[in-house]
Amino acid sequence: MTGSSATGGPGGAERFARTALSFVAQPGDLTLGALLRARGPAGAFAAICAGGPADTVGAGSGIPGLSRATQRWAARLDSVPPDSRFAAWERAGIRVVCPGDPEWPTQLDVLGDARPLVLWLQGSADLRFTCLRSVSIVGARAATGYGQHVATEMAAGLAERRWAVISGGAYGIDSSAHRGALGADGVTVAVLASGISYGYPKGHHELFAAIAGQGVVVSEWPPDQAPTRPGFLVRNRVIAALSRGTVVVEAAVRSGALSTARHARDLCRPLMAVPGPVTSALSEGCHEIIREWAAVCVTRAQDVIEHVSPCGDGLSARRRGPACPRDGLDPVTSAVLEAVPSRAGNGPAAIAISAGVDLDTAIRCLGALAAAGFVERCVRGWRVRKNA
Amino acid sequence: MTGSSATGGPGGAERFARTALSFVAQPGDLTLGALLRARGPAGAFAAICAGGPADTVGAGSGIPGLSRATQRWAARLDSVPPDSRFAAWERAGIRVVCPGDPEWPTQLDVLGDARPLVLWLQGSADLRFTCLRSVSIVGARAATGYGQHVATEMAAGLAERRWAVISGGAYGIDSSAHRGALGADGVTVAVLASGISYGYPKGHHELFAAIAGQGVVVSEWPPDQAPTRPGFLVRNRVIAALSRGTVVVEAAVRSGALSTARHARDLCRPLMAVPGPVTSALSEGCHEIIREWAAVCVTRAQDVIEHVSPCGDGLSARRRGPACPRDGLDPVTSAVLEAVPSRAGNGPAAIAISAGVDLDTAIRCLGALAAAGFVERCVRGWRVRKNA
Repeated sequence: MTGSSATGGPGGAERFARTALSFVAQPGDLTLGALLRARGPAGAFAAICAGGPADTVGAGSGIPGLSRATQRWAARLDSVPPDSRFAAWERAGIRVVCPGDPEWPTQLDVLGDARPLVLWLQGSADLRFTCLRSVSIVGARAATGYGQHVATEMAAGLAERRWAVISGGAYGIDSSAHRGALGADGVTVAVLASGISYGYPKGHHELFAAIAGQGVVVSEWPPDQAPTRPGFLVRNRVIAALSRGTVVVEAAVRSGALSTARHARDLCRPLMAVPGPVTSALSEGCHEIIREWAAVCVTRAQDVIEHVSPCGDGLSARRRGPACPRDGLDPVTSAVLEAVPSRAGNGPAAIAISAGVDLDTAIRCLGALAAAGFVERCVRGWRVRKNA
Repeated sequence: MTGSSATGGPGGAERFARTALSFVAQPGDLTLGALLRARGPAGAFAAICAGGPADTVGAGSGIPGLSRATQRWAARLDSVPPDSRFAAWERAGIRVVCPGDPEWPTQLDVLGDARPLVLWLQGSADLRFTCLRSVSIVGARAATGYGQHVATEMAAGLAERRWAVISGGAYGIDSSAHRGALGADGVTVAVLASGISYGYPKGHHELFAAIAGQGVVVSEWPPDQAPTRPGFLVRNRVIAALSRGTVVVEAAVRSGALSTARHARDLCRPLMAVPGPVTSALSEGCHEIIREWAAVCVTRAQDVIEHVSPCGDGLSARRRGPACPRDGLDPVTSAVLEAVPSRAGNGPAAIAISAGVDLDTAIRCLGALAAAGFVERCVRGWRVRKNA
């Protein structure tokens, strides 16, 4: 297993520990999260490898249930695969992203101890920058024709306005949202509850390939992992935390489709729902969260963008009219924007040199500029958006 | 024209003046409202009859536009009909209710200068007590089958829970709401934009007769008056002000159907809307007021009642469980409730004597008790509700 990172981020030991731990513990394990916070990834992994739970890890740590959890993790240490498997995944275009990596979506850090250990990714889009200007569209698997139509149209409308879509990988609303975004040449992100190579459900292998081609497929689970029932609910926190806001298109009352909405609400992210006929059981959950959780009633992509765009971003920049929207930028961000080419595109390192800033600053500014709609990713790196 | 009132309220001169003025001025005329406030009904009518606008009325009154308005009203004085017409209307079961009468719905007083001069009524229900426990259901004339279905079901659900329905007299949502309430043996109130005898639209004559049989038909216009285009919008303030809250079932964006909603909002009355397919233009207005005016998203009668019931009323009384819901009543109201018979029913005067209170107090308490669900109207007067 290799642990290098060309663009900074955690090096060998930490990257190795996080990746290995993703084979031995379940995502969202709060006990492991607390241990990581106390000892760091390498320290936690070493303690688990040392095998002795009570003496070396549990004693004095003050983390409830740590002894038993350590035994459970230690018993799974042999599921960490040999280097050859990692090499095969790398050849298949699967990459691992850790906290601290340039592609790590820092908005996940609000999850605290439940933050993913690592993310396994496959696809052409940069996850971090994609998610800075993204909306989650979620809903029932057993969606109606109405719900699928609305999800498709809304995703297409978001894509046309250069907003990315985030959803799960299920039948129904999830796949309609991805297809709507793909059909409008947009970027879409599928967050799976299985490993990427396993690709659950199997009937969506072609869809996942299309998403990887135009966006990115994401999982907290190692590539070959089959899904588990609780895994779907655990995964939903990532869908809610990655995006700027969550839209529920169709959901029955007390259905799993509302768990992502609950995460969005608990994270204080904008929560929206699409109304439907009151005679449809699959719209009941939407109406309930509009009434009880103050979810905003949205009917089209434009409503969604208006609700998730902070002032100065996206739409509001466009509304300023003839005044140059670059006016409001700070001098450093402005210098980075000046350094971004308008056609061919350029990498962050070249842009950093041209702007006279360090690489981290360039990446941070490019992210902000992308979120505000000034620049966009292209094959060769970053370029200025038309009409920006 | 007779001006007597068996149960108190304004006597001859005031009643005559208000009724006569309802022939010469349009409902909601703010200039006349200001004049009434300054001079009282009899004084205002006398001033108009005196014919001299500037000298006797306009001078020093400080009411803008009063001179010209007085000329306009004076020119219509001969439209006040002879006593024989009033007698004929009375024989047809049409009664006039003025501010101060026991049947006057005092909640209309929030309309200020736009308060109706009088209300013309036809029907078996007592308007004031009916409206204390009522909800307005409004919406498009060109309603869809979906909207008509929802309006019918919601009105029936309200009627089953002993809530009255208030609406206009139009095709579409209005008539569906009335029919839903009538079908569930409920009380329903039609507020027309024409006179009661004129009965616009003509196709609803049978419906209006059924409403009069089981509820009450209401108009601000004299019985023979044809509707005018602006009259419909003027009428809508009465629909909003009479009820405890307003529900919009279907409405296109910027349609007249939203004017009642606007009145409800401006009067700070609970405003609700029924969602529908986002693909339906006739639900767009509903979604808009949910999003922009914070109208509450309601899908069934129970949602509506929960939203319009103040604490201690209706549902919440029932929720208290085994504790007697009479606990919270003040001693006077409690004495009145004790005096209400449980089966045959009794009139307010008899109840007042039995409770040892005056008639006004008895009527006030009966209204409060009806609104809270303790008592109900019956053929012989008032009786205790079952399960109260």
